[in-house]
Amino acid sequence: MQIDVALVHYPVVNKLGETIGAAVTNLDLHDIARACRTFGVGSFYVVTPYHDQQEMVREILAHWRTGHGARANPDRGEALALVKLCANLASLYEAVNADRGQHPTVLATSARSEGRGWTYDQVRRADGPLLLLFGTAWGLAPEVLAGVDGVLPPIGGADASYNHLSVRSAVSVILDRLLGKRS
Amino acid sequence: MQIDVALVHYPVVNKLGETIGAAVTNLDLHDIARACRTFGVGSFYVVTPYHDQQEMVREILAHWRTGHGARANPDRGEALALVKLCANLASLYEAVNADRGQHPTVLATSARSEGRGWTYDQVRRADGPLLLLFGTAWGLAPEVLAGVDGVLPPIGGADASYNHLSVRSAVSVILDRLLGKRS
Repeated sequence: MQIDVALVHYPVVNKLGETIGAAVTNLDLHDIARACRTFGVGSFYVVTPYHDQQEMVREILAHWRTGHGARANPDRGEALALVKLCANLASLYEAVNADRGQHPTVLATSARSEGRGWTYDQVRRADGPLLLLFGTAWGLAPEVLAGVDGVLPPIGGADASYNHLSVRSAVSVILDRLLGKRS
Repeated sequence: MQIDVALVHYPVVNKLGETIGAAVTNLDLHDIARACRTFGVGSFYVVTPYHDQQEMVREILAHWRTGHGARANPDRGEALALVKLCANLASLYEAVNADRGQHPTVLATSARSEGRGWTYDQVRRADGPLLLLFGTAWGLAPEVLAGVDGVLPPIGGADASYNHLSVRSAVSVILDRLLGKRS
């Protein structure tokens, strides 16, 4: 399977359901890049329209890819080498199309059941490239969910009453469900 | 399944393989507590012998369980309610025995294949309570691995050459493999 991952910082919602732009979290970059590298994801797109946030991401990446961090912990640079910056969803879709040579199937993730649900089995059997969208803050804004090809079911155990995984955990679990090798 | 989780800060190894004590990471507490609550884990034990670190954990827990954080984000307090502090492995085992009324099967996790491997299917079919040990830094020290009932296989995709998931991701994936509801 050819999977790319995008972490969206705008438009997302806050806990009141209002559309906001979220700040980039350093540990999201690290944890999600490490999970992407572990499971064989192609690219990890970080989507934010804010120039100061883009600059911060570039500084973090430079530290680990070519700076002191690259010498101290080369494994980290290898994971962060997957990160690409995009200003918005339009340029994200353009970048993935250009890189994969075709439109990917775009699947959003959500902590709530959104309808138009694909099962994980369906996703594993899907043809062609896949792009998975993850939202920061309280999740992807409704206009993002309205524009995708499908939504993955929320993650949970037997008691589904608590749906507050970190996005770092959600990415890891979903990549394992789609790409993980059981042994 | 009755599963408890322990995050061990001593004894663990650094990247040179030397036995060290690691500092507690705030986001480990949050992410792992949220994953434990999501998947129905009983208790999340944080194991550290250092009094200043224990004090820091108590302050973080108080903020989210009864302080300002409890009012601002009650979901977080609900997850962090699972956290219990232990000074060392001996008191961890004592606490789990007392709480579960019997010895749990103790399984360690490792980013390397350690032998004495259990498969995830075997673990899911196991009787009685389970205690999962996760190491911080570069993983659990050899003396910890030597004293457990088994070791879970490392997590990865088709290409198993990169084994540097964050412990936050590893806990999330393993709990999903053991307790996650597929839909």
